[in-house]
Amino acid sequence: MRIDIISVVPELLESPLQHSIMKRAQTKGLLEVQVHHLRQWAVNEYGQVDDYQYGGGAGMVMMCEPLAKALDQLMAERRYDEIIYLTPDGATLSQGMANSLSLKENLIMICGHYKGIDDRIRQHYITKEISIGDYVLSGGELAAAVLVDAIGRLLPGVLNDETSALFDSFQDNLLAPPVYTRPADFRGWKVPDVLLSGDPKKVEDWRYEQALRRTRERRPDLLQDEG
Amino acid sequence: MRIDIISVVPELLESPLQHSIMKRAQTKGLLEVQVHHLRQWAVNEYGQVDDYQYGGGAGMVMMCEPLAKALDQLMAERRYDEIIYLTPDGATLSQGMANSLSLKENLIMICGHYKGIDDRIRQHYITKEISIGDYVLSGGELAAAVLVDAIGRLLPGVLNDETSALFDSFQDNLLAPPVYTRPADFRGWKVPDVLLSGDPKKVEDWRYEQALRRTRERRPDLLQDEG
Repeated sequence: MRIDIISVVPELLESPLQHSIMKRAQTKGLLEVQVHHLRQWAVNEYGQVDDYQYGGGAGMVMMCEPLAKALDQLMAERRYDEIIYLTPDGATLSQGMANSLSLKENLIMICGHYKGIDDRIRQHYITKEISIGDYVLSGGELAAAVLVDAIGRLLPGVLNDETSALFDSFQDNLLAPPVYTRPADFRGWKVPDVLLSGDPKKVEDWRYEQALRRTRERRPDLLQDEG
Repeated sequence: MRIDIISVVPELLESPLQHSIMKRAQTKGLLEVQVHHLRQWAVNEYGQVDDYQYGGGAGMVMMCEPLAKALDQLMAERRYDEIIYLTPDGATLSQGMANSLSLKENLIMICGHYKGIDDRIRQHYITKEISIGDYVLSGGELAAAVLVDAIGRLLPGVLNDETSALFDSFQDNLLAPPVYTRPADFRGWKVPDVLLSGDPKKVEDWRYEQALRRTRERRPDLLQDEG
């Protein structure tokens, strides 16, 4: 999979893409992430990519021309499955959406900044608008990093068996059950007996029961979605 | 505000905290973020901080002792308002939650990895469990970066007037209206006339109408919450 990210603060994306599982995905050749600085398509020699908004009011808007040029250039080089704009008013990212995007080949992600991008780019270029949650960030870069991570870890071969994504929260509409490791007694706080029983069937039943209980208590909405 | 982050991949947090608005917040002395490597509280000279999970199954669990030691040490130094664990089964982060956390003084954030942390730490130390959305990431670091950004930009003095958070999506249960900047005609795609009218009242009405319409179309749930 190839992901092209267009940003006005590309430095911000350096460390999230260069460590841990995202690094492994790229080293293994399973994921290629290219971060492009929007300023290379600026409208003038001062590197301008934003301007005041029509109608007045606080906050700059990212201009049509640099974004259109960037997108035209990338789209002339290869076919993209989706041109994604990360914005708080997009569709809320879910595990299902991440699963489905992980099956694509080429994606573009545009990181908004300031007041966002000129709406004409949204109308004429963007094929998918995604929000990572109901809160506002100072830019789209962290949202892009989150989306790349959520998708990238699902690519076959990226995770070890040990960290397989199949048993994660949300994959089966249930939150994950509690986990424990050694020691069995820490400051008098004990691990549930069943986990020390050595009976795989009992452990499995307990985990399912705990997952169901935790989901009922914390996120009953996930269970309703199932029906 | 001071935020202490405990992580097994602290490098991952470098660039998100060193650029753009988070950098400005720290340079201005409005926000202090300390990232701690959990390995300094490892249980042995090999730097061990995780172990196999009781009951069997794939995936390592972050051990009690290193986390308990880290938290004890920090909590002996100052009073923390919240000990936050970033986990997909936590309460879903909202703008309201970010607003409320931005009023605190000292926060600890723990980034999970692998299968997560030993449940006894959750039971005995953690005061708030937060998820940034219904999807799974390869670790809690990006979630912590998102939370720091969502909170940090709300601290008084961090944003310029120009980028004031008051008119963001979610602050009034409405998505933001579309924005446009120059040129008024780009490839035949035109800016709505009303924004060029120079009539502030008309512009304001149009924006409110557009915000309401966009919210109705995309996120009717936000309007229901209001009632």
